[in-house]
Amino acid sequence: MSQDKSLPDLAAVRKEIDAIDQQLQLLINQRAACAQKVAQVKIAEEGENAFFYRPEREAQVLRNIMERNQGPLSNEEIARLFREIMSACLALERPVKVAYLGPEGTFTQQATIKHFGHSAVCVPMAAIDEVFREVEAGSADYGVVPIENSTEGVISHTLDSFMDSGLKISGEVVLRIHQHLLVGENTRPEKISTIYSHASSLAQCRKWLDAHYPGIERVPMPSNAEAARKVKGEWHSAAIAGDMAAELYNLKRLAENIEDTPDNSTRFLIIGRQTVPASGDDKTSLMVSMRNQPGALHQILEPFNRHNIDMTRIESRPSRSGAWNYVFFIDFSGHVDDARVQPVLKEIGERAADMKVLGSYPRGVL
Amino acid sequence: MSQDKSLPDLAAVRKEIDAIDQQLQLLINQRAACAQKVAQVKIAEEGENAFFYRPEREAQVLRNIMERNQGPLSNEEIARLFREIMSACLALERPVKVAYLGPEGTFTQQATIKHFGHSAVCVPMAAIDEVFREVEAGSADYGVVPIENSTEGVISHTLDSFMDSGLKISGEVVLRIHQHLLVGENTRPEKISTIYSHASSLAQCRKWLDAHYPGIERVPMPSNAEAARKVKGEWHSAAIAGDMAAELYNLKRLAENIEDTPDNSTRFLIIGRQTVPASGDDKTSLMVSMRNQPGALHQILEPFNRHNIDMTRIESRPSRSGAWNYVFFIDFSGHVDDARVQPVLKEIGERAADMKVLGSYPRGVL
Repeated sequence: MSQDKSLPDLAAVRKEIDAIDQQLQLLINQRAACAQKVAQVKIAEEGENAFFYRPEREAQVLRNIMERNQGPLSNEEIARLFREIMSACLALERPVKVAYLGPEGTFTQQATIKHFGHSAVCVPMAAIDEVFREVEAGSADYGVVPIENSTEGVISHTLDSFMDSGLKISGEVVLRIHQHLLVGENTRPEKISTIYSHASSLAQCRKWLDAHYPGIERVPMPSNAEAARKVKGEWHSAAIAGDMAAELYNLKRLAENIEDTPDNSTRFLIIGRQTVPASGDDKTSLMVSMRNQPGALHQILEPFNRHNIDMTRIESRPSRSGAWNYVFFIDFSGHVDDARVQPVLKEIGERAADMKVLGSYPRGVL
Repeated sequence: MSQDKSLPDLAAVRKEIDAIDQQLQLLINQRAACAQKVAQVKIAEEGENAFFYRPEREAQVLRNIMERNQGPLSNEEIARLFREIMSACLALERPVKVAYLGPEGTFTQQATIKHFGHSAVCVPMAAIDEVFREVEAGSADYGVVPIENSTEGVISHTLDSFMDSGLKISGEVVLRIHQHLLVGENTRPEKISTIYSHASSLAQCRKWLDAHYPGIERVPMPSNAEAARKVKGEWHSAAIAGDMAAELYNLKRLAENIEDTPDNSTRFLIIGRQTVPASGDDKTSLMVSMRNQPGALHQILEPFNRHNIDMTRIESRPSRSGAWNYVFFIDFSGHVDDARVQPVLKEIGERAADMKVLGSYPRGVL
């Protein structure tokens, strides 16, 4: 056993860890001292209200880290640690204040922490427009709101809030969500009579359930975790939940990744008062108002196609003003400062009744 | 401005940060590789169910880090970052599963994360005895439960749970809690007619309020944060809340640290199935059953005094069995393996009807 010559010597490894920790500590504090120098320059140049948080710079740092990562820590884990280190360095000058759509414990909170780290001061708001108001009033530096979520219909609230707001999008966060069909040890697939999960998870797997468990009762639960816990001791029921719940309750995975859309993820926007310089891999969101006339949509889409700009999303919303029948929300790859993007914006600006750039921001890292 | 020769050059500082980040990344991954080697040895020696998490070792690492810390990051912040790094390294082998007294967003969750970092899998339980059961059944590696909390009366539940359990205490976490009296910009102290806060915060500041704001209405709110938010726009009310809420809502501090006990903190216990070797600065918790006879308490306390062992806490609970009238819970400084502790335990063991060592564990770091 411990006499095995091929095994490393525990005391020696621990000594190595201690030496590494000493170096790590010195370097982290050196990094913090550098951040203080940056803050000093910014205050001298921009005054006390200078923006210390630079989304494009942070995105670049994280991309570099993931590109050169050799492991054994995964890209996701090493990026998470660097977010925390950056977050701590930034908070040394002044903690970033972030308002998010609450309550606590939601995916939006998870996205907020993923993006800003734990040294940021995060506060839950009861509604999307409250998040906007907090940031507009300067009570929070940034806001985090969901923009694409398959079941909650929050997209429209967030889009509508942009109509009345001067806020800019300064970033996006994407959370991947995988669902599994989980059962207790003694459950046989053919005996399943009930499937438990949160309503939105049941909705995300609707087609899969229709195909594989037609006619089986689906019961909504307050959370996926509670669904998993419930089926642990039962032999005639299954739960839909993610990796964490499966591990925690030692459940068997009857089927993995059963969500209907192969890339099931929820997307969030970071909103703020600042415009973000190009990071090298950016997206831009536009809001365009058009009269409801034949060919209106084509008039907007055509320049993107002609200039070979990759449009990633388009949504339309009825206008609130009544004067223009539709408002289009368009996402495309590129930054407003890119030479190839500017002619497109110019052309659309000439054709549309109104056009507003909601923001150019780094594409979500991971 | 930017021409100022005394200011650092931003581009140069950023280059320096990039170089630091490269080294940091290499070192963190080297540390992770070391952790894998440790795990390899442990599996060879102790089998697949080996304990990778070593509370005494982690406490030593954090103490060293805080002792040699030169800043600019605070001891608390650098310790937090190292907890995260250790947590990530540990999770590489197998994530630690921790059951805690829920719901999410409570101080117990904060304590759990403070102790285990974000790479641990944490699950909220509805009651203290459920936390015990999860750990006993092996569904969770550790549990986190509050043990001293001025208002909720949870001590007795936790103590009672130990009576029926074979679990060991493997650590403690202390969270400091400071309360301030906060008002909006235009509020004058003499105009305050209502004070809002969470019920337990109102209770924590009762004496101070009686002395300084007698007869003023105290209104309980769902949380301190909501209390702070409520008073922001009012001119005749105040809130009791902590630093985070004060900063977030830009409230004025009429009075700071108004909690009645100068060291207002909540203490939590980590419970597990393993005994923890000495870390160099440890505490031990004992459970002692005594017949209710004159001098019983003195018989227990006397050996501590004579052997010069520092007793930090004593609680008595009525016994459930009925056979013995009282059960005493005693905390003292030292580890069961210390030469000076062993004669004390021997003497108490001879005098008591029953004695159980609940655990020796590292004193809470920070």
